[in-house]
Amino acid sequence: MPTHGVNSLLAAISGEGRDAKRGGYSRPVYSDAEITLREWFIAEASVRGLEVSTDANGIIWAWWDLPGSPGDDASRKGSLVTGSHLDSVPGGGAFDGPLGVASALAAYDVLAAREASGELARNRALALAVFPEEEGSRFGVACLGSRLLSGAIDPVKALNLRDAEGNTFADIAAANGLDPARMGRDEKALARIGDFIELHVEQGRGLNTEQYTDAAGRGPAVAVGSSILGHGRWRLSFSGQGNHAGTTLMIDRADPMVAAAQLVLKVREIATAQPDARATVGRLEPVPGGTNVIASRVDIWLDVRHPEDAVTALLVEKIHGQAQKIAAFEGCSVVLTEESLSGTVHFDAALSASLERSVHRLVPDAPALPTGAGHDAGVLAAYLPTGMLYVRNPSGISHSPEEYVEDADAEAGVLALADALEDLL
Amino acid sequence: MPTHGVNSLLAAISGEGRDAKRGGYSRPVYSDAEITLREWFIAEASVRGLEVSTDANGIIWAWWDLPGSPGDDASRKGSLVTGSHLDSVPGGGAFDGPLGVASALAAYDVLAAREASGELARNRALALAVFPEEEGSRFGVACLGSRLLSGAIDPVKALNLRDAEGNTFADIAAANGLDPARMGRDEKALARIGDFIELHVEQGRGLNTEQYTDAAGRGPAVAVGSSILGHGRWRLSFSGQGNHAGTTLMIDRADPMVAAAQLVLKVREIATAQPDARATVGRLEPVPGGTNVIASRVDIWLDVRHPEDAVTALLVEKIHGQAQKIAAFEGCSVVLTEESLSGTVHFDAALSASLERSVHRLVPDAPALPTGAGHDAGVLAAYLPTGMLYVRNPSGISHSPEEYVEDADAEAGVLALADALEDLL
Repeated sequence: MPTHGVNSLLAAISGEGRDAKRGGYSRPVYSDAEITLREWFIAEASVRGLEVSTDANGIIWAWWDLPGSPGDDASRKGSLVTGSHLDSVPGGGAFDGPLGVASALAAYDVLAAREASGELARNRALALAVFPEEEGSRFGVACLGSRLLSGAIDPVKALNLRDAEGNTFADIAAANGLDPARMGRDEKALARIGDFIELHVEQGRGLNTEQYTDAAGRGPAVAVGSSILGHGRWRLSFSGQGNHAGTTLMIDRADPMVAAAQLVLKVREIATAQPDARATVGRLEPVPGGTNVIASRVDIWLDVRHPEDAVTALLVEKIHGQAQKIAAFEGCSVVLTEESLSGTVHFDAALSASLERSVHRLVPDAPALPTGAGHDAGVLAAYLPTGMLYVRNPSGISHSPEEYVEDADAEAGVLALADALEDLL
Repeated sequence: MPTHGVNSLLAAISGEGRDAKRGGYSRPVYSDAEITLREWFIAEASVRGLEVSTDANGIIWAWWDLPGSPGDDASRKGSLVTGSHLDSVPGGGAFDGPLGVASALAAYDVLAAREASGELARNRALALAVFPEEEGSRFGVACLGSRLLSGAIDPVKALNLRDAEGNTFADIAAANGLDPARMGRDEKALARIGDFIELHVEQGRGLNTEQYTDAAGRGPAVAVGSSILGHGRWRLSFSGQGNHAGTTLMIDRADPMVAAAQLVLKVREIATAQPDARATVGRLEPVPGGTNVIASRVDIWLDVRHPEDAVTALLVEKIHGQAQKIAAFEGCSVVLTEESLSGTVHFDAALSASLERSVHRLVPDAPALPTGAGHDAGVLAAYLPTGMLYVRNPSGISHSPEEYVEDADAEAGVLALADALEDLL
């Protein structure tokens, strides 16, 4: 029996990082709130007797070694790893990230009880992991921890990323006890991961669609991940002529806000016309941003996703072309910068098949589902076998205070994760 | 002869409050930069032997009493006052505000020399004044100092205004040595002002239009103000459904950014169709403002101006109607809030006629010009005779780093101001 259920674990951190202005939670990486959550995880893992350490890239590892094992690199090679992240988007929900971390702790409790009762005999160690800056909400690049670990991002580029206050990632990492010179691809840490399983709240309404729901309209509690939609982030910077809002005639203007507004509408039009595409402008910053000032520059950030990478590229090309046309017509100019780009990821077929078999013991109708959201399991999939479990989100809403998981589904998620891990240990 | 010319005075403060990100200057009221400029003015006035005090509303007064006068309220009643402000919009120019303050000091130097040589015999005192929060860039209400002085704003409303960090004006005023309980209409201070003259950089291209320029394309250095276009500020808050940018299908969205973008275009369309109207969206804030998040709310700020107040009201009504139509179509809602509203102001006819006669001695072709920009002289015009002088701005650009005044024009502005003040003293 678990010493603490997943819902109690989540309740313990439910007061940390609340955002009074936006609602929900704002827990950017290395903010006071995220640091408090990291400390909470370390305390929960330590009290369970797990050996906890933070690696050069800021990833926290909590090891459940085999009985009698020395717990060195050799004995931990090819271990099973599960976990997620604790940072959030601005005004995000309570589950995106923390559900996977709390479920890892709770699943460990289930497995430790099974081992103590002789039900479980392991062949390898299990580690629980917490990845930093999964959302990219502070430094602009999502899954920064797993990208550094795997070498998917050049550490020099990562260290020069800046947050909204102008701090570099190098400065913030150093202030949090990390050595910037040691960050980057970590061969030893990678060799320790045999398989990585990430449990996550579902971020869409896949489990709530008619094909899966019962007569009461309730979908299965858990799904197994099949693929992650390719996606990227681009910044479009429109420059015009800053001027006084009262003295400048309408016909004398080169207003980048008007250009940016036209592009926001084109983005929706282009994405809607392309089946399975999603494109969003969720961030827009006018400079200087005064009420009585025609902006001199407007930056907009573009998020584009499609199952086929070639289509994603084509969509961005179309949007860029429209941006240039609009800018020229408005007497403005525009510069496109790619901030990140990830291709569509298919999770490891053998590992996913194993996950499905295990999960079906508890949730016979658990489907395999694709997702439009990026994850550390998606980044690591290029380097080692990874798989994912999704827990039902009745609202279908995520990155918002309305994101939701029912207690019973969270508990079913833990047991499904425990079964899946048991079959892989 | 002046002890310091206006250009030397401006050069002395040219390093304060530079904005590395936006270019130009960011000197919001009671920021370090604006406080440094206030201290600079107090030092420059004190070194000239003027008696300096800051009143209950944070307005600085520097008095040049009549020789032998006790300098009390009775002897200062109905004095001549000139001055402007030292705060700026974010990323504003060097002249909007400081030119009027530096010119007041330099014009005093000219007049003091004339009095010393027996050329000038005064009938009343002269005061140089510096008004706080003229731009409204920190607390959202322009000309806050003159509105408080005159009672044009309820002090309770003013004290509850908040800056972007959430500080109330009451807190910031108290932190700067003012007593919030004493703020508001100041009968004694008003009685001391017989006439108020404000010199300001021109914020449009009025002096550079063909009807005024010479063969070399150069307009006259100075104009006399005739009127200030009515204007107001409104906030439109669009609410929709915050959600994940990757998992939410295009057809499932209620995206307030898309609604706000449509309104930005409608604002331009409506203002362009109305002769002499100007309407601007220079500030737009999505909440939460993450790249991978569909916004749950987008606030836009609207600046609308027209010579006829009824037309301004009609324009805002049209824009609001369009906003409601767009919001409903997009599955969003919208709320309109008026933040400030000022009717068209005509400066005092007798005072303006006197200004024109005086200015024509040095600048025979100085025209009378209207402006689209608000000023403390516009707010005070409802309570006492006020007038303005504008100095030529070759760029025609303002509220931007490109705002510009040539040295020779600034010097001509000082001499024109000195002549105008002399004729009124």
